Amino acid sequence: MQVDTLINARWIIPIEPHEIILEHHSLVIHEGNILDILPQQQAQEKYQAAQQEDLSNHALVPGFINAHTHVAMTLFRGIADDLPLMDWLENHIWPLERKWVNEAFVRDGTDLAIAEMLCGGTTCFNDMYFFPEITAHQAIQHGIRANVGLIMIDFPTAWASGPEQYMEKGLALHEKLRHQPLIRTPFAPHAPYTVSDEPLRQISSLADELNLPIHMHVHETHSEVSQGERPLKRLHELGLITPAFIAVHMTQLTHSEITKFAQSGAHIVHCPESNLKLASGFCPVQKCLDAGINVALGTDGAASNNDLDMLGEMRTAALLAKGVAQDASAVNAATALRMATLNGAKALGIDDITGSLTRGKAADICAIDLSAIETQPLYNAISQIVYSTSRHHVSDVWVAGKHCLKNKQLTTLNIQDLKKKVAQWQHKLQSPISELT
Amino acid sequence: MQVDTLINARWIIPIEPHEIILEHHSLVIHEGNILDILPQQQAQEKYQAAQQEDLSNHALVPGFINAHTHVAMTLFRGIADDLPLMDWLENHIWPLERKWVNEAFVRDGTDLAIAEMLCGGTTCFNDMYFFPEITAHQAIQHGIRANVGLIMIDFPTAWASGPEQYMEKGLALHEKLRHQPLIRTPFAPHAPYTVSDEPLRQISSLADELNLPIHMHVHETHSEVSQGERPLKRLHELGLITPAFIAVHMTQLTHSEITKFAQSGAHIVHCPESNLKLASGFCPVQKCLDAGINVALGTDGAASNNDLDMLGEMRTAALLAKGVAQDASAVNAATALRMATLNGAKALGIDDITGSLTRGKAADICAIDLSAIETQPLYNAISQIVYSTSRHHVSDVWVAGKHCLKNKQLTTLNIQDLKKKVAQWQHKLQSPISELT
Repeated sequence: MQVDTLINARWIIPIEPHEIILEHHSLVIHEGNILDILPQQQAQEKYQAAQQEDLSNHALVPGFINAHTHVAMTLFRGIADDLPLMDWLENHIWPLERKWVNEAFVRDGTDLAIAEMLCGGTTCFNDMYFFPEITAHQAIQHGIRANVGLIMIDFPTAWASGPEQYMEKGLALHEKLRHQPLIRTPFAPHAPYTVSDEPLRQISSLADELNLPIHMHVHETHSEVSQGERPLKRLHELGLITPAFIAVHMTQLTHSEITKFAQSGAHIVHCPESNLKLASGFCPVQKCLDAGINVALGTDGAASNNDLDMLGEMRTAALLAKGVAQDASAVNAATALRMATLNGAKALGIDDITGSLTRGKAADICAIDLSAIETQPLYNAISQIVYSTSRHHVSDVWVAGKHCLKNKQLTTLNIQDLKKKVAQWQHKLQSPISELT
Repeated sequence: MQVDTLINARWIIPIEPHEIILEHHSLVIHEGNILDILPQQQAQEKYQAAQQEDLSNHALVPGFINAHTHVAMTLFRGIADDLPLMDWLENHIWPLERKWVNEAFVRDGTDLAIAEMLCGGTTCFNDMYFFPEITAHQAIQHGIRANVGLIMIDFPTAWASGPEQYMEKGLALHEKLRHQPLIRTPFAPHAPYTVSDEPLRQISSLADELNLPIHMHVHETHSEVSQGERPLKRLHELGLITPAFIAVHMTQLTHSEITKFAQSGAHIVHCPESNLKLASGFCPVQKCLDAGINVALGTDGAASNNDLDMLGEMRTAALLAKGVAQDASAVNAATALRMATLNGAKALGIDDITGSLTRGKAADICAIDLSAIETQPLYNAISQIVYSTSRHHVSDVWVAGKHCLKNKQLTTLNIQDLKKKVAQWQHKLQSPISELT
């Protein structure tokens, strides 16, 4: 049979079934999807491929799903570090956003983020920011899968004047993008403390009607939960907490909140590096997993991380969970890799099309070169990927069968042009903070 | 004036003075030492260099000091992950060590570690393992600075039969190596629970007489401190806790223990990734720094990390400290970088010769390329190095003026030979654990 691409890999880690490592297998891509995974010799007999890739030192894993981002904020990377949360927000990030965030900012920031994500093996991101139409446009142009949140927040921003206009623009965007194969449009109410009941009720009802997920920051910090009613309780009462709900951060959780959340079938996105950097608290990841909650992984924005590196995030998640659970067997390597792939797809409601290397799913694939000295010796490829490998070992990335990163070179973005644009933003943004107000 | 090497760098971060970033300066190396640091134009007028390096996108920082390693254990990287501490030690690491650790193992494991460390910008390590004479020999051969611990442990190993022989062999090795410029030989009693009073008393007295540091695991886990007398109390009583003492881990500390330790002038080596991976506990780093304790940074062995990556460790240290202190301003970027350089030199008692880019000190230098997209935009070079940079951006390393890593290529080790040797060890070591006993 004639097929598009045949990849011979030293290891293939399909994620489903869990913890399985296939050796010396081939993955066959045809018309954007995974057609077959089989031993290399059988593949040579069965298929004639237009493209053949021999990745004899490499592991194939599903492309990573970064389940919580603010991609345009990549232009703020490192602009205000080591500051307490409210000082960081009120005196740095918000004034900078008021002054600079516009369509051009979102376009160039998104491009920078997409370049960084593709180079690091990420094939899908779940974003929340202003001008989502720009983010979607850039994602389509550069061939990465994206969930662009229909942002909702009580106060006016450069994008919309208030809840009514956010909703109106959001629904129009959803309508416009609903036939784009790479794009989904979840509702993205910012946080319990920035969105009031009425728009949340509307979102709850429309999410059900339109079959859209709801992506929201929840219980990020201690101060969020220490002012009266617990936000989770309110969200339950508003009917928001369903299998369509994606709660980001969740560092403040009681035992009964975990139980109730698990029963709802809703999802958590854990952002360990952002939670550490902003001193937000520790998400009890192993307890949530034990309760049966689907926990995915996100980097958050580059202003509080300061990268969009899912291999690094996976490693931090695996290490931190052990410290927090006081148990060295918590969140083992296979679980961390699953959180960064299949669990992300489940949270976003797209596990029918991505998140594992499974026949019939989209060919969203990351190839990792495991031949560097820092990944020797190698006893278990999954362990090595999570604990010893960095994003600089990612060599190739396919999204829906398109070869977006080819031997470490991006095929859909011009790096030199991008660097020039980012340098211009850097020049503008580094004007003194005092000039912002 | 005619000099050996002149490096023109975009940024130079000398560490002393604290938080200073010099732009467009040159660093002059002559006879292994730093002769001068001055603006590039002045350097061109004042010096004629045999070698000139133009690092126009790079930052120069002091070579990193990995203040706690078991370098030969790099051959165990990833062989037993996600296991509770005692299961890991008793059923995996110790049986493997009994079966495999010999001179050849230590030689090849050390070479693998040195290759990894030099590639990642580390110019000095503080080791504790068997066959320290082999470790010292390989360090000298490959041109890296090393403190090879004179290991002491109550029970017999492949290297020595008991305390008397450890001491005898240790002292002979110290005598043999004392004129080697790159090598120091601290005493290295393993831990409070593995070394009895008599050898510790002897070490205390000899350390004073020979002016040698003492490198020891202390208060690593909760179980270590929960069985009767607090180990630190015993070590104080034995007279061990002096400015020559280097306590590694220290995850279990009361307020009064911190105060007393600070008064002693002794040092802490923080190993955040190992502490997380083995679920040992959290060192209260910011509290220790606030008390005036000198806190350095180490990776621990690659069997519990699983890398020897000081840039990664620095980032984890800065992030984790914020979470533990519940303060986003804890261990800021400049402090993390200082912990990985000058604080390490102070702990090892070698801050007169290394740890900062200072005239008269050895030319132990790491150059980091900050031009990759994942380090754009760049508002502050120190922040960028700690929060966005990885060891794969390290381009050049000098140790005592010797150019050991040149544009990412090692000059003192043959990588292909090394990989072959490591592959042979991998083949041997991956025989089933059941065959070990």
